[in-house]
Amino acid sequence: MKRKIETVGIVIKPHAPNIESILRDLMQNLEKRRIGCLLEDVAARKLLLKDGLPREELPARVDLMIVLGGDGTLLSIAHLAAQSHVPVLGVNLGRLGFLTEVPTDEIYITLDSFIQGKNGVLSPRRLLEARCRGKTYYCLNDVVINKGAVARMIQIGIWIDDKEIAALKADGLIVATPTGSTGYSLSAQGPIVQPYVPALVLAPICPHTLSFRPMIISLNSRIRIQLLTAGEEVYLTLDGQRGISLGKNDVVEIEKAAFELSLISSPKRNYFDLLKEKLGWAATP
Amino acid sequence: MKRKIETVGIVIKPHAPNIESILRDLMQNLEKRRIGCLLEDVAARKLLLKDGLPREELPARVDLMIVLGGDGTLLSIAHLAAQSHVPVLGVNLGRLGFLTEVPTDEIYITLDSFIQGKNGVLSPRRLLEARCRGKTYYCLNDVVINKGAVARMIQIGIWIDDKEIAALKADGLIVATPTGSTGYSLSAQGPIVQPYVPALVLAPICPHTLSFRPMIISLNSRIRIQLLTAGEEVYLTLDGQRGISLGKNDVVEIEKAAFELSLISSPKRNYFDLLKEKLGWAATP
Amino acid sequence: MKRKIETVGIVIKPHAPNIESILRDLMQNLEKRRIGCLLEDVAARKLLLKDGLPREELPARVDLMIVLGGDGTLLSIAHLAAQSHVPVLGVNLGRLGFLTEVPTDEIYITLDSFIQGKNGVLSPRRLLEARCRGKTYYCLNDVVINKGAVARMIQIGIWIDDKEIAALKADGLIVATPTGSTGYSLSAQGPIVQPYVPALVLAPICPHTLSFRPMIISLNSRIRIQLLTAGEEVYLTLDGQRGISLGKNDVVEIEKAAFELSLISSPKRNYFDLLKEKLGWAATP
Amino acid sequence: MKRKIETVGIVIKPHAPNIESILRDLMQNLEKRRIGCLLEDVAARKLLLKDGLPREELPARVDLMIVLGGDGTLLSIAHLAAQSHVPVLGVNLGRLGFLTEVPTDEIYITLDSFIQGKNGVLSPRRLLEARCRGKTYYCLNDVVINKGAVARMIQIGIWIDDKEIAALKADGLIVATPTGSTGYSLSAQGPIVQPYVPALVLAPICPHTLSFRPMIISLNSRIRIQLLTAGEEVYLTLDGQRGISLGKNDVVEIEKAAFELSLISSPKRNYFDLLKEKLGWAATP
Repeated sequence: MKRKIETVGIVIKPHAPNIESILRDLMQNLEKRRIGCLLEDVAARKLLLKDGLPREELPARVDLMIVLGGDGTLLSIAHLAAQSHVPVLGVNLGRLGFLTEVPTDEIYITLDSFIQGKNGVLSPRRLLEARCRGKTYYCLNDVVINKGAVARMIQIGIWIDDKEIAALKADGLIVATPTGSTGYSLSAQGPIVQPYVPALVLAPICPHTLSFRPMIISLNSRIRIQLLTAGEEVYLTLDGQRGISLGKNDVVEIEKAAFELSLISSPKRNYFDLLKEKLGWAATP
Repeated sequence: MKRKIETVGIVIKPHAPNIESILRDLMQNLEKRRIGCLLEDVAARKLLLKDGLPREELPARVDLMIVLGGDGTLLSIAHLAAQSHVPVLGVNLGRLGFLTEVPTDEIYITLDSFIQGKNGVLSPRRLLEARCRGKTYYCLNDVVINKGAVARMIQIGIWIDDKEIAALKADGLIVATPTGSTGYSLSAQGPIVQPYVPALVLAPICPHTLSFRPMIISLNSRIRIQLLTAGEEVYLTLDGQRGISLGKNDVVEIEKAAFELSLISSPKRNYFDLLKEKLGWAATP
Repeated sequence: MKRKIETVGIVIKPHAPNIESILRDLMQNLEKRRIGCLLEDVAARKLLLKDGLPREELPARVDLMIVLGGDGTLLSIAHLAAQSHVPVLGVNLGRLGFLTEVPTDEIYITLDSFIQGKNGVLSPRRLLEARCRGKTYYCLNDVVINKGAVARMIQIGIWIDDKEIAALKADGLIVATPTGSTGYSLSAQGPIVQPYVPALVLAPICPHTLSFRPMIISLNSRIRIQLLTAGEEVYLTLDGQRGISLGKNDVVEIEKAAFELSLISSPKRNYFDLLKEKLGWAATP
Repeated sequence: MKRKIETVGIVIKPHAPNIESILRDLMQNLEKRRIGCLLEDVAARKLLLKDGLPREELPARVDLMIVLGGDGTLLSIAHLAAQSHVPVLGVNLGRLGFLTEVPTDEIYITLDSFIQGKNGVLSPRRLLEARCRGKTYYCLNDVVINKGAVARMIQIGIWIDDKEIAALKADGLIVATPTGSTGYSLSAQGPIVQPYVPALVLAPICPHTLSFRPMIISLNSRIRIQLLTAGEEVYLTLDGQRGISLGKNDVVEIEKAAFELSLISSPKRNYFDLLKEKLGWAATP
């Protein structure tokens, strides 16, 4: 069944090379397909247009978001797009990204596959909901508790479904979705998790207890984390983008979000192709 | 709802200390509860009884299996018990095991909780079905492809749902269930997976490609593994117990089994308590 | 040959339990041995004495330093003691430390072994000299370049003896002595290095490049590290105690210091005993 | 000072592509330089010559060994060349090797640099001496104790300089030289050790005790390893090439060999260039 796309929202990584011409080309192609488009402020200014909107306002007004940039750019609007049930197509302008895996020369084949209703290009992704100090945050990749650069090792209490797991001594703790498993979590020795496995990763950052290994727990878990250490600089970081200072006894509650992100991927590349290319795995002879 | 147990099958680790008196005590207690019991050969001989049965024949004839031994003893009958839909209670006679987590002084409280129909003591566990050279095997922990001690590094082709993942150069590959994640897979840097997460672990053993990290894939995956190397001694090992020699181009197909094991755990200890105790994790102060 | 000790300097961890009585007992015992002692300020105040000195001034005025505390307390004066060629005896008041490995009930047997000239209790330890922004620092454990909690991954150029090694993308980099190898470096997957091996550890913290593994290089290496990233909060941390903010292109030069620390260990415990106890390794049956 | 080379011994990897023409070209070039050459049997037969010698006999009769092949080919004669104090030039016919790092188009520049007495191309490498069951073996890379594919975890007692380290439960143990640190040891999480650091690596293979991490010990250590497990198939493997079956209580004693190997490397590539290229590390922008 064909998908009906009337308006596309476009966000960009401002300093990407050739961003103006790629943007202009994209707008012309959308016009040919009789699809309207809304640009974020910075993108509008690149083309000397006046009607740009703040990045955060786009998802609520469009049927599809296109990101021209890297994974960081996509992460900045992923949770908003998911909340608005708007799919996201991530175009990488440089190196292949885990989220922005569509190269510029596959934009239109991907877009058309999506419009024609092909299912292979839609990859649903779970999000995390994190609550801390009365506020709620949504993350596509990860929720991270991390000590500051000059702080000493911190201690973090971890409860899953109200059962105490451990009082971890470490630099920090990563709670990642399968999507986030190839991000920061991978650097911290976490495993690679296939996108739609209903599971979360708990990966300690530089754990003092050597037997505290990365864990995979049910997606339906309610995770409660409490900072047990006083007097050190500690932050909660959401998708590597938003940071909140934490104090002793502060609690972070994490569970799966009620909504998902529809990520659009190129019909020319499946998840394992992406892994092989990004991680340099050998193919069969 | 009460569970009806008429006959219990008992298997033992023959050389465990005090096995005779533990066995005699167990039989007397079962008799008090008007539960019959069948012993495996070696257990019957310990008590100078004549009517022992081969270990493999017990699961099909009883309502519950009790294992007096270690995790290895339990693994030897787990797949048979699962196929017969017979629950298993694992009693450790020495160190706490991941599968035999009931100490001797908690046998009866565990048994009674189970009979009284309490659900907290029942932990369902997935099994793997592995097919190789026309035969089918079932495993509670893991399916391992491993090179011999003097063999050189081998190369293994891996496909998931018919998509090629990689041609792994390594000592071997572990495919583990969540239950098996705390076994051999953990020694090979695999993550700890909470028991009923619908996922499998792929953990390379001493991978030559340093970026080939442990992976978590869907429980519903069809895994196909092919030995690409000729002339080296290579084995398929099932639950660390049964070994099959593999030759070049031999294929192993792995997916989840159609049945599960009902593992009985002590009401006094949850999964995370077990992890904390086995791995020496600190508790909150 | 007997060692001549006229004055001992004492530093303490102020909030350690029973610190007053341990301190009083130590002073009486030193008096019996006709050894004078100088206390740091905070220790003097604990005993309502007036002639305490700043911690940093002690090493230059004494023949031996005794630390009553944990490894952190010892690290705070280790480099000063080493510069003054004054040996250090580390007494742990709680858990066994890698540096403070003498328990209170072994203080006098250790002290007497040292005075009597026994060599087994002397463990020479190398230090690092780090130069940054015109200042020079000395470290017993490690020199760490680390990003702030909310900073993104940083990039660090590494040169050894003027040869470029890599432009590492990571959370940070640890340069550790053998002594420091059981500290932060171990949490970051670095190897354990026997104390007097003439080598340094380079251990990346959460490396983005999965093949960037911990390295062991010659103790005689000149290491040059340059922060290549702009706009992120990055710190140089010395022995986990002193922090210096770094900006883009800032350079840190590291090599072995011209002097060593004489660490005094208990005659009842060798290095491998310490490892076995701290890390929970099994002994032969 | 010029080095005097009268005779070169040549060993080959027989099935390498174009081996005949490379061999013929090498012989002509040596002739031009008035250097004689001795071929191993299989190389002589490739060129239909009759006077080949067994590979093992060559090092004692020549002034320089040239290996046309991969690291495995070089390892097969490295210990013999080292015993005879004959330098070895390793030419890779396919992928760059850690030992055979000279590509075919750099053979003569490397050879001439060596003959002209340039020191940059000489890289001295330590060897291990292993004694087991009355026999003595020499290894350039590593001595490995490893269980067979279907064997269960084994237990290995480790002593260093007569001090007990641990009774390791694992698949095995690797004792590697710095040269061997980029081989099997690296796959087992061991660190990379710069070639001439006077140290050895102890790397456990799939350790059951998660806190048993790779260790770096002094090159002057006397290592004693004893197999504590009975009834399992266990092998001692030397440089990945020679295997010896071990039984319960068998002892392997390892220390540095009394001689070193002179490995010749290309003047165009230093050790860190090699690491960067083999491991795919990024260079500074």
